[in-house]
Amino acid sequence: MSTPFMAIEWKENKIILLDQTALPVAENYIAYDSIAELIVAIQRLVVRGAPALGVTGAYGVVLAMDEAARKSLSADQLEKNINALRDARPTAVNLAWAVEKIRKHVASGRDAVMAAAQELASEDKQSSTDMGNIGAEWLINKLGAKPLTLLTHCNTGSLATTGTGTALGVIKEMHKRGYVKEVFADETRPLLQGSRLTAWELMKSEIPYRIEPDGAAAMAILSGRIDAALIGADRIAKNGDSANKIGSLSVALACHAAGIPFLVVAPESTVDRSIATGKEIHIEIRGDEELTHFKGLQVAPIGAKTFNPAFDVTPAEYISAVITEKQSYEIAKGETL
Amino acid sequence: MSTPFMAIEWKENKIILLDQTALPVAENYIAYDSIAELIVAIQRLVVRGAPALGVTGAYGVVLAMDEAARKSLSADQLEKNINALRDARPTAVNLAWAVEKIRKHVASGRDAVMAAAQELASEDKQSSTDMGNIGAEWLINKLGAKPLTLLTHCNTGSLATTGTGTALGVIKEMHKRGYVKEVFADETRPLLQGSRLTAWELMKSEIPYRIEPDGAAAMAILSGRIDAALIGADRIAKNGDSANKIGSLSVALACHAAGIPFLVVAPESTVDRSIATGKEIHIEIRGDEELTHFKGLQVAPIGAKTFNPAFDVTPAEYISAVITEKQSYEIAKGETL
Repeated sequence: MSTPFMAIEWKENKIILLDQTALPVAENYIAYDSIAELIVAIQRLVVRGAPALGVTGAYGVVLAMDEAARKSLSADQLEKNINALRDARPTAVNLAWAVEKIRKHVASGRDAVMAAAQELASEDKQSSTDMGNIGAEWLINKLGAKPLTLLTHCNTGSLATTGTGTALGVIKEMHKRGYVKEVFADETRPLLQGSRLTAWELMKSEIPYRIEPDGAAAMAILSGRIDAALIGADRIAKNGDSANKIGSLSVALACHAAGIPFLVVAPESTVDRSIATGKEIHIEIRGDEELTHFKGLQVAPIGAKTFNPAFDVTPAEYISAVITEKQSYEIAKGETL
Repeated sequence: MSTPFMAIEWKENKIILLDQTALPVAENYIAYDSIAELIVAIQRLVVRGAPALGVTGAYGVVLAMDEAARKSLSADQLEKNINALRDARPTAVNLAWAVEKIRKHVASGRDAVMAAAQELASEDKQSSTDMGNIGAEWLINKLGAKPLTLLTHCNTGSLATTGTGTALGVIKEMHKRGYVKEVFADETRPLLQGSRLTAWELMKSEIPYRIEPDGAAAMAILSGRIDAALIGADRIAKNGDSANKIGSLSVALACHAAGIPFLVVAPESTVDRSIATGKEIHIEIRGDEELTHFKGLQVAPIGAKTFNPAFDVTPAEYISAVITEKQSYEIAKGETL
């Protein structure tokens, strides 16, 4: 399924980014032809999502070479610029990984670098398509070829990848086949990726949807409104335990209580077979301000402390299957990764 | 335990309301001596919470009589004013109930009306105290006499009653006895009663607390950070099924999975023995705007549909006990109400 927008694109020797900070109020595309400006954009979260950041880093190396040629920069200065791009967001592993992978081709010239960047982008796009198909087949096998109401959490679509997405990619493939009645999108507190980004993406894809508070997911599920839930993952342990955006675990518990499928959809690169269980996954705890203020407005007492974990870990016992671009892993039947 | 503020109070022939719309940014008290102004205050949600609205209605009848005497209003006009007060918020059953109960004394004169209003307020206050003691005893019997970390959802304290509160009343009693290590308060989307009101009330009571997104409650519970969770209720069926603020069900599912107590604390007036189970409870679905906008700021696509139920129903199987001002009902042991 083609997407009606591109979060990141190489066009007329520039990187074009859809400004995700302006969504859903405005759909603005910004063209970048300087590394300094691209770094600021990455830090401002104009672009986000691990795969999308990887592709931005890959094309960024081409941009760095073009800028160096245009401004007659030294090889030393070019190297410094590429290092700065790599380090723009230290916690975004995919950005550094992609920059290091592509810069190996710099000695072979601009054409080789461009070819490598395009290959990385193309692989990312294909990965979405493959997850979409494997996930859709899984749902159809399990629930039958009929329109379903699907629930998702956070944003895992074309705003986070260069393809259709992970969990949202499966939903789009189901829609393409005529099997989506409606999507329930959790708003995903505190940063509202669901209401700001997923809702916008579903609207652009013309898929019927509703936004719900994260706390309403359990009622939606246990009242029989939902047929299956699908989420992405940031890291998956060998036994299937999956770390994902905070609030995912609540969805999993409700699906388990209701006896409906709960799917984790993520690329193979997310699977970490070096860790046996989710107990080994370190969870980032974020600052108070995201909960005590909303766009600068105070919504809690001055000095309020918070519990603001970025992720939670859903134990394998609550996961029906993990879908990657390679295969589905039947976690509920005791399979491991 | 005395509370460091009063949501509603009769003082110097006026009703003094703590303006809950200004919390947590400002603690403003407003004095009312006219029925027209009091009605506007009720409609603006300056005062909220079923028991607090009941007491406001009760003192409101005294206010109506005083105003009628001061302005030499006819008996007809006094009756109209009392009717308008009763109908200020049609869904607030307690307001109408209290106004009707107290107006029966109007023929007996102002002293009789004042005595009846004071009795109603005093009963409400005593009810909180009794729930607090019964709930605290239950927790100590179950978990031992030691400091606990307790989780709560929405606001069920002195801002919603004239006493210490229902679920929050139990927490305050535990604190008074030295058995509260910390309270985790769900922010309670979409209206943020947790971060705006409960956090403020805990701060005023000098009880250590943290705010968390509703979606983080499951992780807090399953990671072993929480000893027990306590919520209020809007309606309880004979079998124990309990309707409460949306998001309560998720907390119950997580407590069940973790094997920790989940308590529902509410006055006997909340128990509806005429309904066998929660299936008979009608759930109010609220408008889109609460989710698509935040204080006027757009946070979702224009025209986004929502799923915005005011309450969810927690099935009895996930409830350890229901605490009222009369006794504890051991729901987990098969007891009914």
